[in-house]
Amino acid sequence: MRSVKVPLGNRSYTIKIASGLLRRLGRACSTLNFTGQCAIISDRNVAPRFANIARQSLSRAGFKPFLIVVPAGETAKTLDTVRACYDQLAEHRLERQSCIVALGGGVVGDLAGFVAATYLRGIGFVQVPTTLLAQVDSSVGGKVGVNLKAGKNLVGSFYQPRLVLCDLETLSGLPEREFRAGLAEVIKYGIIYDASLFARLEREMPKVLQRDPRILGAVIERCCRIKADVVGRDETESGVRAILNFGHTIGHALEAISGYGRYLHGEAISIGQIMAATLSKEVCGLSEQDVERIRKLFQRAGLPTHVELTARQRKLLLEAMRLDKKVRGGEVQFVLANRVGKVRWGERVPEAMIRRVLGAS
Amino acid sequence: MRSVKVPLGNRSYTIKIASGLLRRLGRACSTLNFTGQCAIISDRNVAPRFANIARQSLSRAGFKPFLIVVPAGETAKTLDTVRACYDQLAEHRLERQSCIVALGGGVVGDLAGFVAATYLRGIGFVQVPTTLLAQVDSSVGGKVGVNLKAGKNLVGSFYQPRLVLCDLETLSGLPEREFRAGLAEVIKYGIIYDASLFARLEREMPKVLQRDPRILGAVIERCCRIKADVVGRDETESGVRAILNFGHTIGHALEAISGYGRYLHGEAISIGQIMAATLSKEVCGLSEQDVERIRKLFQRAGLPTHVELTARQRKLLLEAMRLDKKVRGGEVQFVLANRVGKVRWGERVPEAMIRRVLGAS
Repeated sequence: MRSVKVPLGNRSYTIKIASGLLRRLGRACSTLNFTGQCAIISDRNVAPRFANIARQSLSRAGFKPFLIVVPAGETAKTLDTVRACYDQLAEHRLERQSCIVALGGGVVGDLAGFVAATYLRGIGFVQVPTTLLAQVDSSVGGKVGVNLKAGKNLVGSFYQPRLVLCDLETLSGLPEREFRAGLAEVIKYGIIYDASLFARLEREMPKVLQRDPRILGAVIERCCRIKADVVGRDETESGVRAILNFGHTIGHALEAISGYGRYLHGEAISIGQIMAATLSKEVCGLSEQDVERIRKLFQRAGLPTHVELTARQRKLLLEAMRLDKKVRGGEVQFVLANRVGKVRWGERVPEAMIRRVLGAS
Repeated sequence: MRSVKVPLGNRSYTIKIASGLLRRLGRACSTLNFTGQCAIISDRNVAPRFANIARQSLSRAGFKPFLIVVPAGETAKTLDTVRACYDQLAEHRLERQSCIVALGGGVVGDLAGFVAATYLRGIGFVQVPTTLLAQVDSSVGGKVGVNLKAGKNLVGSFYQPRLVLCDLETLSGLPEREFRAGLAEVIKYGIIYDASLFARLEREMPKVLQRDPRILGAVIERCCRIKADVVGRDETESGVRAILNFGHTIGHALEAISGYGRYLHGEAISIGQIMAATLSKEVCGLSEQDVERIRKLFQRAGLPTHVELTARQRKLLLEAMRLDKKVRGGEVQFVLANRVGKVRWGERVPEAMIRRVLGAS
C-alpha cells in the first residue's frame, strides 16, 4: 500500500492510497481511538454507491454509524447545509470522542471538514475522497469551509483530518467529466513543483485517461507527496503554501461569477491556469514554448482552456478577484511560473495587464 | 497598568487591565501589525455607549473602522447573526491583515470571536470586554462559538484573541444585575482554585459591590491570572481546563430549557454552582460548612441560589445535560469540589443522585 505522511507535529496524519480501503474504514477508525457514534457525511450521488460499504465496515468495528446525505455539487457548500448537518449531529448526540467521515468529493470534504472543525469546538474527522480531485488535493491539508454568495470558501478553517483514505476503486465509476476535472489539479503539481511529473503526464496522458490503476496510484501518491511537503512547511498559508493556488484566483472568480455549477472546479482552474501562464509570460518571462506545453497538456486532458467573456463579465470577474482571500491592501496577488516546475507567489500584476489577458484568452 | 500574559506559544497574548484602555485601542491594534479595514462588532446596548470612542481611536491610528451592530443578549448568539456578520465583512472587503474588534459582553465576544475564527479561515481579533463577566472569563482563553436550538455553544472553535483590553471604566455604567452576574464567575475562581480569593470576597463583598476600582482591578487581575494559568496548561480542554466548568453543566442546561434569556449566564451558573456544591457534598465529601459558605457568598452577591422545578422541567434539564459537550459515553461528567479552593473534574455522578439534588435545591 502506498502511504504518505503529512508532517504537522501533533496534528500529523497519514494518507493511504490503495484499492479496497473503504472496506477497511472501520478498523482504521478504531486504531485512531474514536468510539461510539460515527457520522458519515456524503452526497446524493456518492451515498448510493458507497455509504453502505462504509456503514457496514464501521458497524463491524463496533461503531454506531449514521448517514447524513447532503445535496450534490458546489451549490450545496453553504451555511444552510452546515446548519442541517449540525442539527443531525445534535439529534444523534455526537460526542467529542465520536468521529465524522467525509465520504465524497471536494465539496463533501470541505463541508464535512468545516462541520467537524466547528461542532463541539472540533471533533475528529476522516477523509474518504471518492474523486480524483479530492484525492490529490482537497482532502489533504486541512483547508475546510463553505461559500458565501460574495465568494468561494470565504468561510472556513484550517482543520486537519486524522486520516485520509484514497480508495482507487472509487475512481473507476467516476463520470468522465469529473475525472478530467481532477486532472487539472494533477497538472498543476507538475507546473508548480515537479517538471518530471509534468513530463510524465505528457508521455502517459492516454494511459492516465484510461485510468490505468498502476499509473494512477503512482501519480496520486506523487501529488499527495508534493502537497504534504508544501503543507508541512506552511500549514496556514503565510508563505510557500500559496503556490498551490496557481490558477485559482482567476478560477475561483470564474466560478463565482458563473454562479457555481456551470464549471466544475477543475474546469475553472484549468482556464485559470492558462490565464496565469499567459500572465507569467508577460510578468516573469515564462517562455512561449512552456505556455504552449501547458495549454496543450490541459487540452489533451480534455479540459477547457479558453473562455469568451463579455465586457460586463470581465468587470464582474475583476470584482470577484478583489474579494479573493489572498488580496492584500486591495491588490490581487498571483502565483506565476518562471518555467514548468518552478513558480513564485505574491506577485502583483498591474490591473491593465490582467484586463488584457482576460480579453485575449 | 495591570497586565497578564496567556502563555500559548506563538499564540500567546496579553490581557491589559486599566481605566481608559478603550481610548488607546487604535494604537494597540497598530502595534499588532494589523492594517486597513477594521470591523468593530458590538451590540445594541453597548454600541451607543462605546462604539464612537473605539472608532475614533482606530481612525486616529490610521485604520478604516466600520461598525457591525448585532442584537443584544444570548438569543442573538446564533448562526443567523454569524451569517449577517460575514455578509457585512464581505461587503466591506475585509482582508487577512484586517482585524475584528469584539466590543461588548460575553455574547459579543463569543460571536465575534467565532466570526473571526472562520472568516477567510481566520483573521486576527481583539477582545474589548465591557462587562465584568467577559473581563474575568469569556474574553480570555479562546473559546468562541454560538448556540444551536439543541444546546448552548454546540458550535464553535478554540481561537485565541491577539489582545484583551479590560477597560475598568466600561464597568461603571453596567446595570446592577449584569455586574452581579459577573460575580458568579469571580466567585467560581475562588471555589475552584484560590481559597484566599474566596476569603477576600467574603471580607470585601460590600466594596466589590460598590465597584471600588482598586479592589475591582485587583480581583479582575487575579481571575485573569487563574484563567491564563489553566488555559496555558490545557488550551483545548483535554484535562485541567475542565475545572473552569464548575457549575456550568447544570447552568447551561438551565439556560437551554428556559430558552436563553430568562437567566443571565451568571445567574444560571450561580444556581448551577450551588447544585454542584451539593453534589460535591454527596460524592466527595465537601463539608456542610463549605457548602454554606458558598451559598452565602452567592447570596451576598445578590445572585439566585435556588430554582423551583416541576417534574417536567427536571426531565428537560436532565435531557439538556446529556447534550453537554463534556458528555462521554453517554455519561454526564461533573466538576466537584473537595473544599473551597480545590476541585476535581471528570466525576461521574449516578443519575439518581442528580435527580435528588435537582429536586431538593
